[in-house]
Amino acid sequence: MTYVETLGLNAKNAGSQMGAASPMIKNNALKAIADALIAGTGDIIEANKLDLENAVKNGMSQSMQDRLRLDEGRIEGIAKSVLQLVEAQDPIGSVDYGTVRPNGIKVCKTRVPLGVIGIIFESRPNVTVDAATLCLKAGNTVILKGGKEAINSNKKLTEIMRAAIKSVGLPEDAVQLIEDTTRESTNELMKLSQYLDVLIPRGGAGLIKAVVENAKVPVIETGTGNCHVFVDSSADIEMAANIVDNGKTQRPSVCNAVESLLVHKDIAQKALPVIKERLDKHNVEIRGCERTAAILGDCVVPATEQDYATEFLDYIISVKVVDSADEAIEHIRKYSTGHSECIVTESLINAEKFQREVDSAAVYVNASTRFTDGGEFGFGAEIGISTQKLHARGPMGLNELTTVKYLINGNGQIR
Amino acid sequence: MTYVETLGLNAKNAGSQMGAASPMIKNNALKAIADALIAGTGDIIEANKLDLENAVKNGMSQSMQDRLRLDEGRIEGIAKSVLQLVEAQDPIGSVDYGTVRPNGIKVCKTRVPLGVIGIIFESRPNVTVDAATLCLKAGNTVILKGGKEAINSNKKLTEIMRAAIKSVGLPEDAVQLIEDTTRESTNELMKLSQYLDVLIPRGGAGLIKAVVENAKVPVIETGTGNCHVFVDSSADIEMAANIVDNGKTQRPSVCNAVESLLVHKDIAQKALPVIKERLDKHNVEIRGCERTAAILGDCVVPATEQDYATEFLDYIISVKVVDSADEAIEHIRKYSTGHSECIVTESLINAEKFQREVDSAAVYVNASTRFTDGGEFGFGAEIGISTQKLHARGPMGLNELTTVKYLINGNGQIR
Repeated sequence: MTYVETLGLNAKNAGSQMGAASPMIKNNALKAIADALIAGTGDIIEANKLDLENAVKNGMSQSMQDRLRLDEGRIEGIAKSVLQLVEAQDPIGSVDYGTVRPNGIKVCKTRVPLGVIGIIFESRPNVTVDAATLCLKAGNTVILKGGKEAINSNKKLTEIMRAAIKSVGLPEDAVQLIEDTTRESTNELMKLSQYLDVLIPRGGAGLIKAVVENAKVPVIETGTGNCHVFVDSSADIEMAANIVDNGKTQRPSVCNAVESLLVHKDIAQKALPVIKERLDKHNVEIRGCERTAAILGDCVVPATEQDYATEFLDYIISVKVVDSADEAIEHIRKYSTGHSECIVTESLINAEKFQREVDSAAVYVNASTRFTDGGEFGFGAEIGISTQKLHARGPMGLNELTTVKYLINGNGQIR
Repeated sequence: MTYVETLGLNAKNAGSQMGAASPMIKNNALKAIADALIAGTGDIIEANKLDLENAVKNGMSQSMQDRLRLDEGRIEGIAKSVLQLVEAQDPIGSVDYGTVRPNGIKVCKTRVPLGVIGIIFESRPNVTVDAATLCLKAGNTVILKGGKEAINSNKKLTEIMRAAIKSVGLPEDAVQLIEDTTRESTNELMKLSQYLDVLIPRGGAGLIKAVVENAKVPVIETGTGNCHVFVDSSADIEMAANIVDNGKTQRPSVCNAVESLLVHKDIAQKALPVIKERLDKHNVEIRGCERTAAILGDCVVPATEQDYATEFLDYIISVKVVDSADEAIEHIRKYSTGHSECIVTESLINAEKFQREVDSAAVYVNASTRFTDGGEFGFGAEIGISTQKLHARGPMGLNELTTVKYLINGNGQIR
C-alpha cells in the first residue's frame, strides 16, 4: 500500500465515526481547533517563516509572498472563521423529502456526508483550515494536498487541527495532509477512486484543468471566472460605471471580478468615456475592439481573440461594442467560463432574455458580479464557486458538501 | 469537425430553444412522439426485424434476442410511458430558494436544464425512447449511443421522434443518435467535453466501468447493484423469507434484485432452511460459507471471495452466516456497490445502526430492496438508479436531469 493509499484508507476508516458524530461534538471540535490555532500562533508563524525564507530563495513574487504570509492578525481571522462555522446550521440528518407510499413503506430522503473529500490547492495556507473545517462540519473526512511553497505552514496547521479533533474524541484522521509535495502524490490522489468520493481543486485555471483532465474520481470544478458586464442601450450610465468599476477594481484577483465589458452600440459613445474615467483611477488597461478605440482613442490596446477568453485577475479589462443584446449573449456563450455575468438595463424584456439565455451559475440584472459568494447569498461559508452543472453550481456551502441517502422502513412489504 | 463533434454542436445549438420551451410545448412534443410511435408501429417492427435477423446470424442468445425484440404490445407500452411523462410535473423554472439580502439584492435559485446529455446504452431499444423523452421533458438535448445490435431499430425510433419534435416547432436536434456503431464514436463521445454537460451510461457493469474510467465529461454511474439482505437474530423468519425470496426471484435480472444473504448465527439454524425452501421453488443456486453448508447440506456450492462481490442477475445467491450486525455491516461495506441493502429485524437499535452505518443509496428496514425505483418511491419515471454520491443518489427522476441557476436582481448594488 502506498503512502497516499494509506491516507485514503485512514480517511475511509474515520468516516463512519465522523458521519455519525452529533452536531454538538463536531462543534466542540471546531471550537477546540479555533482555540488551538490562537494558542499555537507562535508555532504557526515560525513554521510559516521557513516557507517565506524558501520563497525568497526561490525568487517568489512579492504578491505571492504576501498570499503565503501568516501573521497574528491573519491567524486570528482564520480562527474567527472557524468559530463562525460553529453557528452555521448542521446539514446532516435533515430531511429533503419524506412520504408514505400506498403500500405503507415510509420513504425518507436524508442528508448524509459525501464521505472522503480530496482538496488540491495552491499556496495560500488559510485554505488548509477553511477547507478542512467546512468538510468536518458536514461530517466528512478530508485529505489535503497543498502547494509545496506552503508545506511547513500546512504541516503545522494540520498538526494543530488533528490534535484538537482528537481532544474531543473524534478521529484525528478526519483531517490529513499529504506531506509528500511531489506531483506524483497529486496524480495518485486524483486516481484514488477506491477511497475518495469527490475531489475539489481550488486554485488557478491551470490547476483546475489538470485535475479535470486527469482525475478518475468525480471532480467539482471551482473558480475560473471570465465574468462579463453587458451595458444595454437603456442602461443608467452612472449605475453601469459603478458596477463595472466595482467588478473590476474592488478586488481584481478573485473569480467573481469582471474581466470583460460589452457595450451596446447605441450607448457606447456616451457610456464608454464615463466608465473609462472611473477605471482610470485604478490605471486599468483597456483592451478593446476597433469601435472601442474609435470612441476612447489611443489608450485602447487592440483586443485579440485570446483577450476575450482570458481571466486576467488583474487591472486589465477587455471591451467590445456590440450591436444588440443577442450579440452580447452570443459573445458570452462563446467566451464565458459559466461563472457570473451581469446586464445593466432598464428594459424588462432584455433583462429577462439575458437571465434566461445566459448559461452561467449566476446571472445578474443591475448588480455587481462581486456578490457571487456564499456569504453574500446568505449561505455562510463556502468552499468555492462551482462552474460546472453537476451536483453544485454557484457558491458551494455546507449543503453542497453532503449527499443523500434514502431510508425506507416497512413491516414486511414485498413487490 | 468530426461526425460526433457535429452532433455535439447541433445539440448545443438546439439547447437554448429547448431550455426556454414552455411546459406546454414540451408536452405537445411528447404527445406527438407517442402518436407517431403508434402510427409508425409497422415501420418500427420492420426495422427491428433487420436487427433480429442479424442477431440470429451472430448467434445471439434467446434471452438477448428477447430484449431486442419490439412487437405491437411493446411499442404500445413505450408510447404509454411517453404519455405518462406528459402528466409529470415539469421541473424547469421551479424555485429551490429565494431571498432578499440586507442590501436589497434578490437572490433566486431556479431549476434549469442540465444542457446536453449523452446516454450510452446497450441493446434494449426501448431505452432509446425512454431516455430521450425524459431528457426532453426536462428541457435538455440528448445524444444517444446505443448498441450496434439495435442500430436499425434505434435509427427508426430516432427518426420518428425527431419528426414529431419538429412538427410542434421544437428543434429536431434535441434528439440525435450516433449512427456510427464503432467503439471509436463511443470514445469520442466520452471526451466531448466542449459540448456535453453529463454522460449517463445505462447497462452492465462492464459498460459502466469503461465509461467511468475513460470519460473526460462528468459521468453519473447507474445501475450496478450487489444488494444484500441481512437477517438479524431477532428477525421474523417468515418476513425474512418473503423479503429474500421477493428480492431474489421476482425479477432476478434487475439492479435492485438481491444478490447476497447474510444471516445472524443465532437464527441461521432456523431461518436458513425456511429461506432455502422458498428459493428452491425457483431452483436458486446457493453459494454459501462453511456454516451455511453445515446447516443446509450438500446442495450448497462453496462461496468464493468473488461470489460475494458478484452481481449475478440470475437465480444464484451468495450466503454467509455472520456473528453480529457489526460483521454484517462490515461485509456490506466491503462488497456492496452502494445500491440497496436491507435488514430484517425487530431490534430498534440494530435497525437504526444499520440505516446509519450502511453507506448505500437506499437502506431498508423490513422491506424488499425491489422498491428502489423512481415509480415505487413516488417520483414517476426514472432514467436509472445512481450509485454514486455526487449530484444524484438513488432513483434519478426528472429533477435529477436539471441543475440550478442563480438569478440576482438589484438596482445598482455594488460591494
